[in-house]
Amino acid sequence: MNRINRVALVGATHGNEFTGAYLIKKYEQYPHLIGRDSFETLTLFANPKAFEVGRRYIDKDLNRCFKIQDLENPTLSSYEDIRAKDINQILGPKGKSQVDVILDLHSTTANMGLTILLGNQHPFSLQFAAHLSLTYPEVKVCWAAPVQSTLLKSICEFGFVIEVGPVAQGVLNADLFQKTEKLVYTILDYLEAYNQGSISQTNSTLTLYEYVKDIDYPRNDLGEIQAMIHQKLQFRDYEPLNPGEPMFITFDGKEITYEGESTVYPIFINEAAYYEKGIAMCVTEKRQVSV
Amino acid sequence: MNRINRVALVGATHGNEFTGAYLIKKYEQYPHLIGRDSFETLTLFANPKAFEVGRRYIDKDLNRCFKIQDLENPTLSSYEDIRAKDINQILGPKGKSQVDVILDLHSTTANMGLTILLGNQHPFSLQFAAHLSLTYPEVKVCWAAPVQSTLLKSICEFGFVIEVGPVAQGVLNADLFQKTEKLVYTILDYLEAYNQGSISQTNSTLTLYEYVKDIDYPRNDLGEIQAMIHQKLQFRDYEPLNPGEPMFITFDGKEITYEGESTVYPIFINEAAYYEKGIAMCVTEKRQVSV
Repeated sequence: MNRINRVALVGATHGNEFTGAYLIKKYEQYPHLIGRDSFETLTLFANPKAFEVGRRYIDKDLNRCFKIQDLENPTLSSYEDIRAKDINQILGPKGKSQVDVILDLHSTTANMGLTILLGNQHPFSLQFAAHLSLTYPEVKVCWAAPVQSTLLKSICEFGFVIEVGPVAQGVLNADLFQKTEKLVYTILDYLEAYNQGSISQTNSTLTLYEYVKDIDYPRNDLGEIQAMIHQKLQFRDYEPLNPGEPMFITFDGKEITYEGESTVYPIFINEAAYYEKGIAMCVTEKRQVSV
Repeated sequence: MNRINRVALVGATHGNEFTGAYLIKKYEQYPHLIGRDSFETLTLFANPKAFEVGRRYIDKDLNRCFKIQDLENPTLSSYEDIRAKDINQILGPKGKSQVDVILDLHSTTANMGLTILLGNQHPFSLQFAAHLSLTYPEVKVCWAAPVQSTLLKSICEFGFVIEVGPVAQGVLNADLFQKTEKLVYTILDYLEAYNQGSISQTNSTLTLYEYVKDIDYPRNDLGEIQAMIHQKLQFRDYEPLNPGEPMFITFDGKEITYEGESTVYPIFINEAAYYEKGIAMCVTEKRQVSV
């Protein structure tokens, strides 16, 4: 990328993730907070109707509605399908977007602290992530390929998701709100410095958690959950899970262990919104990437 | 009460409070776990449709549908109104109920640990609560008068709510699940001992948190929230809040302090389901009651 001209800050893509929703409301009221000299910053409150009723979505998950075929399919007419097409008009069209960077602010019931989900492993994305984790050591960096093309951030090449947690759906946590806000400013300042050519090129190593696969809850033939995340794994996102270590516990107290062949690093452990998606956690591999 | 003949264990009164929901599912499958010699134990899965879609309710809060006038009002026909009338047939009718004790299993995003909400201050209720907090010192006991008559547990005189937290809506927390289960057995064993006349009458003192009032979030003219629970108050349920201490923090970082005249003990701090009810927390007074 030569130069960043427009940046979009997005919140309330899921209506019950209040951190991003209330940050966008704040920025709509005080746009000078996110203004920078060298680029324009837009805000987008993505799913107002879901926010109003305090739910993730009205008809379907908005953040799975951005496949190019779906955006071009006139027969898709749920609230979120229409909203996705509207957003694609405002920020897109996908592939030829009017914005250079999208920052989509999410929250999770998993203990993921401050996480950046990359859209790709382009050198710009990796350098950006490396810089952030250097200046804000709490930040974890992930890359998850599978659902990329369905996400709102996929409208433009440099789309990033911020995930913060743990926080319950429908709740504001002041500590996470303030940390997310600080991270947004760090990011905007980085983009400004990038435009000004004042990013020092240093050789550094980035710790990247790379998606391997989803793991579902044990279920019976009716699809009903038969076990919970084990106490020893709960809130242990980004920590190593070794073969033989407890992963689930059944309702009558039997342990179910991780039967993989190598150490993995689970994330999105016990995310409320993923029960219906058949995901108890996503396992990642931890890699060191030279940037 | 002379003798307990029937006890009802209720879960999923709110469809996204999974602890109670999955406990009831377990007990439906293994009824011997809740059977006791001297009384019959029923289970009720209160709001199956809301559970299915992972929401608190479909049309309205089921746990505010049990006012006697509403149960008798044939024009009320929302899903929850009809469900309330059905439940009143199964466990009630209210005032002449077929069950002697109701135990309604709830969860909360507030840090309320294991809490029992009493329906009244009848000597039986107070002795029961005193016994529980002696045998299970983690248990806190509250009494909240205002909405009593609208709750499911109000179908019978000795209706109790168990609140456990903090846990996000739509999430199972193994630790809280197991603690709640242990508490249920402790309660059933107490009721069994009561019937057998083997409860030793000891003079004891019960710590009772008595409801004083609700406090709402600071809001603007449109009703929009203007501040969050302060970091220093978050997760501090049952701890003293003194005049002048921080209660909220605005989105631009200004502290709002508690301006009451005496020390209070807030509970339900930052409960997700109460945002729409205009409740940021309930404040209580801490009393010692001789039992």
